[in-house]
Amino acid sequence: MTHKVEIKKNEKLTCDIAFFSNTNCNLDSGYHLENFKIAYKGFGKLNRNRNNAILVCHALSGDQFVAGKNPITNKDGWWARMVGPDKPIDTNKYFVICANVLGGCVGSTGPKEINAMTNSHFGTDFPSITIRDMVKVQKYLIDALNIEKIFAVVGGSMGAMQVLQWTIDYPDKLENAIHIAGALKHSAQNIAFHEVGRQAIMNDPAWNKGSYKDTETKPERGLAVARMIAHITYLSDDVMHRKFGRKLQSRDIISFGFDADFQIESYLRYQGKSFVERFDANSYLYLTRAMDYFDLTENFSKSVEFSSQHNKHINYLVISFTSDWLFPTKENKQIVNILNYNTRKVSFSEIETDKGHDSFLLDEPELDLTISGFLDSNFIRLQDK
Amino acid sequence: MTHKVEIKKNEKLTCDIAFFSNTNCNLDSGYHLENFKIAYKGFGKLNRNRNNAILVCHALSGDQFVAGKNPITNKDGWWARMVGPDKPIDTNKYFVICANVLGGCVGSTGPKEINAMTNSHFGTDFPSITIRDMVKVQKYLIDALNIEKIFAVVGGSMGAMQVLQWTIDYPDKLENAIHIAGALKHSAQNIAFHEVGRQAIMNDPAWNKGSYKDTETKPERGLAVARMIAHITYLSDDVMHRKFGRKLQSRDIISFGFDADFQIESYLRYQGKSFVERFDANSYLYLTRAMDYFDLTENFSKSVEFSSQHNKHINYLVISFTSDWLFPTKENKQIVNILNYNTRKVSFSEIETDKGHDSFLLDEPELDLTISGFLDSNFIRLQDK
Repeated sequence: MTHKVEIKKNEKLTCDIAFFSNTNCNLDSGYHLENFKIAYKGFGKLNRNRNNAILVCHALSGDQFVAGKNPITNKDGWWARMVGPDKPIDTNKYFVICANVLGGCVGSTGPKEINAMTNSHFGTDFPSITIRDMVKVQKYLIDALNIEKIFAVVGGSMGAMQVLQWTIDYPDKLENAIHIAGALKHSAQNIAFHEVGRQAIMNDPAWNKGSYKDTETKPERGLAVARMIAHITYLSDDVMHRKFGRKLQSRDIISFGFDADFQIESYLRYQGKSFVERFDANSYLYLTRAMDYFDLTENFSKSVEFSSQHNKHINYLVISFTSDWLFPTKENKQIVNILNYNTRKVSFSEIETDKGHDSFLLDEPELDLTISGFLDSNFIRLQDK
Repeated sequence: MTHKVEIKKNEKLTCDIAFFSNTNCNLDSGYHLENFKIAYKGFGKLNRNRNNAILVCHALSGDQFVAGKNPITNKDGWWARMVGPDKPIDTNKYFVICANVLGGCVGSTGPKEINAMTNSHFGTDFPSITIRDMVKVQKYLIDALNIEKIFAVVGGSMGAMQVLQWTIDYPDKLENAIHIAGALKHSAQNIAFHEVGRQAIMNDPAWNKGSYKDTETKPERGLAVARMIAHITYLSDDVMHRKFGRKLQSRDIISFGFDADFQIESYLRYQGKSFVERFDANSYLYLTRAMDYFDLTENFSKSVEFSSQHNKHINYLVISFTSDWLFPTKENKQIVNILNYNTRKVSFSEIETDKGHDSFLLDEPELDLTISGFLDSNFIRLQDK
C-alpha cells in the first residue's frame, strides 16, 4: 500500500483521528475514496504480543464512544456497561478499539464533512456506502495501528453486519467473531421501516435536498420522526406494555387532545428530540441505506464453504434475543446453520428477554456472561498456544 | 328525543346525508354536539319485517363506500369483495348500511367540515372524539331510519372497536355482532405507531396547526409518511417477504442512491401518495386518537357480567388472523374468554394466513365462509322464530 496515514488527537472529541491520503480505496459503488479520516477511540492497552485487540463495531446510532464518557452527550458511552475495566469486555485485559463508521457523523468521513474537491459539505454528494465499505476502512485503521491480528470483532445490529463482513473479507485478520442480533440480509420489513424514516427526513423542507449544512436550518423534525419509528422497532410489544402500558403522562384523565397523553408518547417524543441533538440527518440516510443493501445470502455460505483454510480458524459466537422482531432468532440461526453445515466452530445463544432488539445494549446478565465467557476462554487458549 | 332529522341525497358523493339538528348529543369529551351530519350509503333493501339490516362499521381509512364504486377514487368500495349481491354479506338478502364515522372526511361531521359557529373549517377546533361517540351518532342514524333492531353489526380493526361498543351501549338494538381483528384496548405499541404518524403530520409545516384548509397547502408529506408507517403494520413480515422480498424495482442492480431501489419502497411510496389524495390529515389525527383512547378492559366485562337480560341474546362471532401483529389473536381471545366465562353465545375463528392485519380486507375464502355461515344460519333462525 502506498497510502499515507497520519494520526492526530482531537481534543474536542477526546479521541484520535486517522487521516488516510493517497489511497486506493474503491467503494462498492465504484467511487474512489482518495482521502478519508476515521475517528476512533482506544480503551485499555495493546499488550506486548499485540494479540489482545478487540474491535467493537457500532450500530446505526452509535459512535466511537463505546465506553467512558461521550463528550457530545456527556452521558456514558453506548456500551459502557459492557466495555471497561472489570466489565464483561474487560479493558484491564483487552485493548478495545471502536471507530466511527464511514458515513457516520462523529469525526469520520461522512456527508456532514467538508468535501475537499468542492470545499463545501458533502451532503448528498457523498458516495453511497455499504457495510463492506465500512469494514474496508476499518481494515485500513487496524493496519495503521500495526495490529496484525485482531483477537475479536464484536457488534450488534448494524455492528453484527460488519462482524460477518469482516469474517468474509479479512478472515486472516481475526481470531474470534461475536455477532449479536443481526442477519444475513436486511429483510423487506426492515427495509420498509428504514424507507419510511428516510421519507420523513427527505420530506422535511429543512432537509433541502441534503444541503442543509450550508443553510441555518436542519431537518430536525423529519429526523425525530425517523428516530421515533426506529425506536418502536427496537423495543418489543411486551416491554412497552410492561414499561408503559396505557399509563398516562402527568395527568389522571385523558386530555381529549393531541398532547402526549400516554407515557409511551412522551417517551418517544423525548427519544426523537434527543437524537436530533447528536445525529446528522444525511448520515442517517446513508447508514440506513447501507443496512438495506446488506445481503450476504450468497457470499457468506460461499465464503464458509470454499475457503478451506481461510476462515476455518475463526471461533464464532452468535447471539439472538427471544423478543427481537427486527432481527429475530430465526434469521440469526441461518448463520449458525451455515456454519454448522460446514463444521465451523460456532456457539449459539438465544437469550430469553422481553426487551426486544435493544436487549444487546441493556442490562442482560446472561448476555454479559456469554460474551465474557466466550472471550476469556478463547483468550486463555490463545496464550497457551 | 326532540331532535330533528332531515335526509338528503348527495349527488356528488352518490350517497345520503342525514342532518341532525337541535340534538342533545354529548360527546365523551364533554362537548355538546348541537348539529351534525352523517353521510351513509345503503345497499340492498330493508325487508317488510325490517329485520335484515346489517350495519358495517369501517376502519381508520375506510368510508361509507363499503360496496359498489367509490366515487372519489373510482375504484371498488373497500369491502366490495365481501358485500354485494351474491357476496358473503349478500345484499340480495340483507340491507347493508355503512356510515362515514363522526370525525371522518367523506361527508360526515369532522374537522374538514365547516363549523357553523365560526363559518370556517373546524380544523383542530373540532372536539376530540371516541369510539363511543362514533357509535352514538350511528345509533341516531339507525333510529332515523326507523330500524328498531339491527340484524348484525360487523367491523374489522377500528370497525371491530365500534362493534364491541355497540354491544355495550345499545345491546337491545342488535341481534348479532361480528368482531374482526380488534381488541379490548389499544396496546402501547399501537399507540406508539399512531403517535409517530401524528407527529409526522403535525411536524409538516403545511399542517399549520391544523388550519391548512384556509390556506392553499395541505400536509401531504406528513400524511403520506403516517400512512406508510401504518401500512407496514397492516402487513406481516412474511407477506412482505413473499410479495417483495429484496426484489429490485425496475432495475437489475442497486442504484447506490435514495431512489426506490426495492419494490417494497415504491409500493409504500405509492400507498402514501394515493392516500393523501383521498384522506384528510386532521381526520387522521382525530380517528387515530379515538382508537388510542379505546379501552374496554373494565367496561366490557362489566357489561357482559352484570346485564343479565341486557345483551344475553347477542350472538358474537370473533375472528382473528394468525399473522396479525397489530391486533393479535391473543387480544381477540380475551374478548372470547370474557364471553365464555359469562356463558354468552360466542363463536371464535382464528384464520391461518400470512397476510397480516389487512387480511380482513383481502381474499380469504375462510373468512368469507365464516361470515356468511354465521350470518345466514342466524338469519334462518330469526325467520323461524
